[in-house]
Amino acid sequence: MRTQVAIIGAGPAGLMLGRLLDLAGIANVIIERKSAEYVLGRIRAGVLEQGSVDLMERAQVASRLRAEGLVHHGTDLSFDGDRLRIDFTKLVGKHVTVYGQTEVTRDLMEAREGNTIYEAANVAIHDFDGSPSVSWEQDGVTQRLDCDYIAGCDGYHGVSRASVPQEALTTFERTYPFGWLGILVDKPPVAHELIYAHHERGFALCSQRSNVRSRYYVQVPNDEKVENWSDERFWDELRRRLNPQTAEALQTGPSIEKSIAPLRSFVAEPLRFGKLFLAGDAAHIVPPTGAKGLNLAMSDVAMLADAMIELYAEKSAAGIDNYSQRALARIWKAERFSWWMTSLLHTFPETGRFGRRIQRAEFDYLRGSVAAQQVLAENYVGLPS
Amino acid sequence: MRTQVAIIGAGPAGLMLGRLLDLAGIANVIIERKSAEYVLGRIRAGVLEQGSVDLMERAQVASRLRAEGLVHHGTDLSFDGDRLRIDFTKLVGKHVTVYGQTEVTRDLMEAREGNTIYEAANVAIHDFDGSPSVSWEQDGVTQRLDCDYIAGCDGYHGVSRASVPQEALTTFERTYPFGWLGILVDKPPVAHELIYAHHERGFALCSQRSNVRSRYYVQVPNDEKVENWSDERFWDELRRRLNPQTAEALQTGPSIEKSIAPLRSFVAEPLRFGKLFLAGDAAHIVPPTGAKGLNLAMSDVAMLADAMIELYAEKSAAGIDNYSQRALARIWKAERFSWWMTSLLHTFPETGRFGRRIQRAEFDYLRGSVAAQQVLAENYVGLPS
Repeated sequence: MRTQVAIIGAGPAGLMLGRLLDLAGIANVIIERKSAEYVLGRIRAGVLEQGSVDLMERAQVASRLRAEGLVHHGTDLSFDGDRLRIDFTKLVGKHVTVYGQTEVTRDLMEAREGNTIYEAANVAIHDFDGSPSVSWEQDGVTQRLDCDYIAGCDGYHGVSRASVPQEALTTFERTYPFGWLGILVDKPPVAHELIYAHHERGFALCSQRSNVRSRYYVQVPNDEKVENWSDERFWDELRRRLNPQTAEALQTGPSIEKSIAPLRSFVAEPLRFGKLFLAGDAAHIVPPTGAKGLNLAMSDVAMLADAMIELYAEKSAAGIDNYSQRALARIWKAERFSWWMTSLLHTFPETGRFGRRIQRAEFDYLRGSVAAQQVLAENYVGLPS
Repeated sequence: MRTQVAIIGAGPAGLMLGRLLDLAGIANVIIERKSAEYVLGRIRAGVLEQGSVDLMERAQVASRLRAEGLVHHGTDLSFDGDRLRIDFTKLVGKHVTVYGQTEVTRDLMEAREGNTIYEAANVAIHDFDGSPSVSWEQDGVTQRLDCDYIAGCDGYHGVSRASVPQEALTTFERTYPFGWLGILVDKPPVAHELIYAHHERGFALCSQRSNVRSRYYVQVPNDEKVENWSDERFWDELRRRLNPQTAEALQTGPSIEKSIAPLRSFVAEPLRFGKLFLAGDAAHIVPPTGAKGLNLAMSDVAMLADAMIELYAEKSAAGIDNYSQRALARIWKAERFSWWMTSLLHTFPETGRFGRRIQRAEFDYLRGSVAAQQVLAENYVGLPS
């Protein structure tokens, strides 16, 4: 088997890349370790920057997003119950759209015309400095795909980054001493917009997937177990961390999903190794505060698709030669913002009471400064690439 | 002896408070542990916010400042040699004025009409919950001053804060694993404006006292000794941390002062204990990055003077009742900014390579964002009180 671009991973990054290449007439095959159902079962955030919405339009998969996506013109911050609304539209003339990552994946899967190989076991990539190929096993038989290029869109735990020699990679990492305990519930969200809350007991987030499905989170220690959290304990803790009116308005119900996710900042450099390119979570992780993960993956694959199109259509390698540097410039700014927003809103026992007062001073300063609100807004809605 | 307000400390905070009270006809006596010559010999920064310049005008001590102060419309940041000018005037319509703290002190000393007692040994303050008084020794004789109120303007190591019962104080502190090695030299400054430089070897600052006297600093470890630094070693290290054109233009010469100052963030709350009020360094310390120390002391005593005037002229205690809360709101914002600017520009071994990339991302973001530059500028020129 032969193709032009082998894409490892059928998450939103791999599927979007495949779609953009299909539309440009560049042959591609996606190889995915899991089943389509498994991929669609992953629960992830879904706050789309305008650039991500534009990319869905360009990929001609935006009709459901246009109908069902919830436009948010702002977001709420809360600090020990004091509230501040960040008005994106007024501050920077842009907004975000709430549309679950699962829905993005589903739309891209349904639109896909090219070949996607699911449930590929023991995926391996070969000779990406020379004549690249991908191998895998299916029904006990080893398969092989020769290609011009490999796009590693297979996430943090995928085979792509793991196949790069250690000495060729530089990694940057920060772990946080806490995770997010999240609950999914079929109740209308407590507010039309998201609420990011700092409380002395820890961070909380009121998020949503739709007008009838809500997602709530509370900060928990790293070693916390989900079994220790009955729905009732979760709702009690969440209420404590919100301001009284919000807590009062909260509609609770039985959880349809409950899990703890650790928080991590991670970047691997560079993003290109010969004919192998990394994109999305395969190369970088942000903590979820600020909802940058999916948007970064989308901007990575948009840059990579454009570089490939330039290469095949115009025989110019400028795009693929610049991909790593160009994508990393955007990635680091989003890493910085996600780290900052995480630092502002969570409790960090190790920074002590001075650290907590600095957080409070930052919130008070934000309340009084249009420029500081613009900084938050322009990052939240997405910096230009 | 009796007065209305006893002021402990004849630094710029105490002298300015005394001057403002004199002009309002409120009797005051300043008691200072050291000699006037010693006080004037202290080398300190001198970047005045417009609010501090306005206060010098109000105190009728601004004629030399008006003639000799250097108006700076911006400042330069440098990161591994890449430069970014922050244009205060264009960004926020304000500027700062470079005028040494020693000169501020001298102008206030010369204008002083009230009684200042220098070289007062064993200063002690008494009964500030009831009938306050101050005692000290001079030529072996114990003196006593009865008063309505005591203003503690005697710095971090002074007797005022130390006299407050531990349980009445809450303190907030952050120490940094480095200090500033500073050199004073009678040569014109390398640039018209200040240059704040981040380099992988550490922070450096090109500052100035006048058009013919310059002040330069390099970040050194906390346990560094000034004896290890010949002038030549200092200039070599400074040049390495600046961009090549700046290093080339540097005019060096024999140091007329050389010392190492530790960096610390510190706040004590509240600022009022019965009839005792704390102001300036007696209550809070900022790291020198961003030059907030003197300006915060000036805004503290301006608020305190207004509160005293309201009290004596209008018999209203509203001002003194609000002083602590009002001053602390401004103090914490300046603490936040000084901490942020310190965090951006110094090297912190403990944050590792992820931390250093976040610093670089912040600098790159600043270069591309007008809103982020406005945030820096509005803090640097001074937030409204």
